[in-house]
Amino acid sequence: MRKIITLTTDFGLQDYYVSAMKGVILSIMPEARLIDVSHQIPAQDIMAGAWVLKNAAPLFPANTVHLVVIDPGVGTSRKPIALQMQDQFFVGPDNGIFSLLTENEDFKAVELTEKKFWQTNLSSTFHGRDIFAPVAAHICNGADLDQLGPSINELQTYRWASPIADQDGIQGWIIHIDRFGNLITNITHSLIDEVTQGQPLKLYVGNTIIDKIVDTFGAVVEGEPAAYIGSSGMLEIAINKGNAEQMLGAQKGAQISLVLQHND
Amino acid sequence: MRKIITLTTDFGLQDYYVSAMKGVILSIMPEARLIDVSHQIPAQDIMAGAWVLKNAAPLFPANTVHLVVIDPGVGTSRKPIALQMQDQFFVGPDNGIFSLLTENEDFKAVELTEKKFWQTNLSSTFHGRDIFAPVAAHICNGADLDQLGPSINELQTYRWASPIADQDGIQGWIIHIDRFGNLITNITHSLIDEVTQGQPLKLYVGNTIIDKIVDTFGAVVEGEPAAYIGSSGMLEIAINKGNAEQMLGAQKGAQISLVLQHND
Amino acid sequence: MRKIITLTTDFGLQDYYVSAMKGVILSIMPEARLIDVSHQIPAQDIMAGAWVLKNAAPLFPANTVHLVVIDPGVGTSRKPIALQMQDQFFVGPDNGIFSLLTENEDFKAVELTEKKFWQTNLSSTFHGRDIFAPVAAHICNGADLDQLGPSINELQTYRWASPIADQDGIQGWIIHIDRFGNLITNITHSLIDEVTQGQPLKLYVGNTIIDKIVDTFGAVVEGEPAAYIGSSGMLEIAINKGNAEQMLGAQKGAQISLVLQHND
Repeated sequence: MRKIITLTTDFGLQDYYVSAMKGVILSIMPEARLIDVSHQIPAQDIMAGAWVLKNAAPLFPANTVHLVVIDPGVGTSRKPIALQMQDQFFVGPDNGIFSLLTENEDFKAVELTEKKFWQTNLSSTFHGRDIFAPVAAHICNGADLDQLGPSINELQTYRWASPIADQDGIQGWIIHIDRFGNLITNITHSLIDEVTQGQPLKLYVGNTIIDKIVDTFGAVVEGEPAAYIGSSGMLEIAINKGNAEQMLGAQKGAQISLVLQHND
Repeated sequence: MRKIITLTTDFGLQDYYVSAMKGVILSIMPEARLIDVSHQIPAQDIMAGAWVLKNAAPLFPANTVHLVVIDPGVGTSRKPIALQMQDQFFVGPDNGIFSLLTENEDFKAVELTEKKFWQTNLSSTFHGRDIFAPVAAHICNGADLDQLGPSINELQTYRWASPIADQDGIQGWIIHIDRFGNLITNITHSLIDEVTQGQPLKLYVGNTIIDKIVDTFGAVVEGEPAAYIGSSGMLEIAINKGNAEQMLGAQKGAQISLVLQHND
Repeated sequence: MRKIITLTTDFGLQDYYVSAMKGVILSIMPEARLIDVSHQIPAQDIMAGAWVLKNAAPLFPANTVHLVVIDPGVGTSRKPIALQMQDQFFVGPDNGIFSLLTENEDFKAVELTEKKFWQTNLSSTFHGRDIFAPVAAHICNGADLDQLGPSINELQTYRWASPIADQDGIQGWIIHIDRFGNLITNITHSLIDEVTQGQPLKLYVGNTIIDKIVDTFGAVVEGEPAAYIGSSGMLEIAINKGNAEQMLGAQKGAQISLVLQHND
C-alpha cells in the first residue's frame, strides 16, 4: 500500500507554489500523507537538492513517493520523469536532481507523456502543480510506471568533481555548508581510511590547520575547529559550539587539503 | 467527511504560535489532518495572504477547512468569521483576507460569537489559538456554520487597483514578487487578449523594454528577461535562470506598461 | 493509542536533517502522524527551544510524543533521555531543553541506554536521526519508558533570572522577541497583580516610557507602544501595527522597569 508522498522543492513558503501542489495531490488522493522534506533548497540549485535527497530519501519506508521540483528548465525540452528505485518512487524533472541517488543503483525510469495523469489546464511554467504533483498522486494511488509513458535508459547526471588522492594525501572541496556553518566536503570516510592507513595527517582549510580527525566536534574545546566524519559519511569541519563558515571564512567550492605527515 | 485543515499565517516558525494552534486543533479533533499552506506570509500583509489563498485554496478537495490568521487587528472590533464557499470552509478575521477568493463568488458567512466553540481562557492578542483554531476544529468535526454565530452579509473587501486599458495599451502594477524574483502583475491573460488582438507590442518594466510575450521564460536565452502568462493567469516578468527583481531593480507596486505598436 | 509525534529542532529546513528523522520514524512506525512544531529555533539556543515547548506542548492531546533536538552537546557526555509528564512523552538531550516544562511538575525520566531502540549505525554527530527519532517512534509504537533505560532523578535545568520586585516596582528582562518584533518579558501577570495592586505605574523600556498596561496593542493608536499581558501570560511590549524591536531599539536580555507611582 502506497500512502506517503514527500515534497522537496526550491519554492520557499511565502508563495502559493507548495500549497498548490498539496491541493492537487489531496484532490486526487485525499488519504495521501504529505511529508515536507524541504522547500528551502536554494533557488535553482540542483546539486543542493540532490544532496538532501540522497541523504533523506533512502531512510523512508518502501512505497514512499518522492515528489521533487527543483526545475530551472521548466518549459524547455527537459523531460518530466518518474523513477522506481529500491521499492521507492521518484517524480520530477530530468535535470540531474536524481544523480546522487541513482549513482551505482539500479532503477527503472519513464518519461511522463500520458496526459490523462496531468492537470487539464497545463501551464508552461508550473509543471510542479500541473504534471509532477498529479503524477505523484496517481503513483501513490497505485498507477504503474508503465502507464505513465515510455521507458528511458539515460538520465541527465551531474556529479561533484571527485577528490584527488595520491601518496601524499587528498585534495577535496566543500560541497555543502549547513545551517550551523559546518563544512561538508566531498572526501569520504573510506577514501580517508584507504589513503591514510592510520598515518598522522594535517588538514588545511583556508588559513587554518587541523592536526587530527576526531569522532565528533564535542571532542575539541569550545571555539576550536574539529575535523570528523559527519552523519553523511563525509569529512566535515566544524567549530565546537561555533560557526565554521564564519570563523574560518569558508565558502562552498573552497579546497580542503589532507596532507600525510610521513615518518621520514 | 471533513478531515483536512490547512493553515495560512504570518506567524513564521520560530515562535510557538503555529504549534499552539496545531495543539488546540488536535486536542479537539485528533484525527484532523493538518496541511501547512504558509506561515511565511509577510507580517501583517493581508493582500499577500489573500493572493496565496486565492491561488491555493480552490485546488483543495471539497470539505477542506482553511484556517487563516493574518490578523493585525486582533483585539480590536474586527469580527472573527467563518465562511462556506463552494464546498470549502474558511475561518479567520474579517479584515479583507478573503477578498480575492470571494470576488464574484457566492458564499455564506457568519460572525463567530458562540463562545462554547472557543478556548475557555481567551487572550486578547492570540485569537488564532483561542478562537480560530478551535472553531476550525469544530467545523472539521461537523459543526454547521449556523451554530457558530449569526449570518453576516457584508465582508471587508480589499482589491488591488485594476489595470488601466485603452486603445494604446495597458498600464498595470507589480502585485507580488516571488521567491525566484519573478514579477507578477495585475494584468490578466484575458485583458491582454482583448486589448492587443494579436498586434505587436512593447513592455516597459523600469528601464527595460521587452518586445513580445512568450510561452515561458525558457523561450528566451539565459540571462534575458521574458514576459509570459504565469501559473496564476497573470502577466509575469522573469529572467531565464536569473532573478528579475534584482536584475531589473523592480519593486512591488511599480508600474508595468504594455504599449501597442500600431501599424501606422 | 499513541499516534502523534511533534518535532522541534534548530536544524532549519535547507539540510537533510529534519527529513532524515522523519524517514527514520516512518520506517519504524508508518502510521505515525508527524507535526512540525518548529525547525527555526535559533541554532543551539536551548532556552528559545524551551520557551516554544513550554507554550505549545501542553496544548497537544494526551499520548503525544514530543521529539526535541536542540543539541549543541551531541557527541559529549550529555545524556539522551525520555520523559513522561502529564500523559505526554518527550525525547531529547538532557541539556536543559525541558527545564521550563518540568518546573513545578511531576515527571518520570529515563536515560536512553537500550541500543535495540536505536539505529544500528550510530553516528557521533547526529543523535537526532540515530537515537532520538527511533526512540520517539518506538514510544509512539507503545514502548514503555522502563524498556528504554534506567530511571534518572535529576535533569539539567536552566532558568531565566527571575524579575526583582519590591515596594517600588519590578525589574525584569526581555526573554524573547517574536517575528512581529513584540518584546516578551519575564514578568508574569500574577507578579504584576501582586506588586501593583491597581496603583498607577510607569514602564521604562530603553528610552521609552509607557504609562499603563492595556488589554491588547489594538487599544492604543497605530504606531504607539502598548504594554499588555501576552498570550503566554507574560508582560509584553508591542507597537500597534508596528515593530517594537526596531522602533524601540530593543534587544533580548535588555531590562524593563515597572515603577509604581505612589500617591504621595
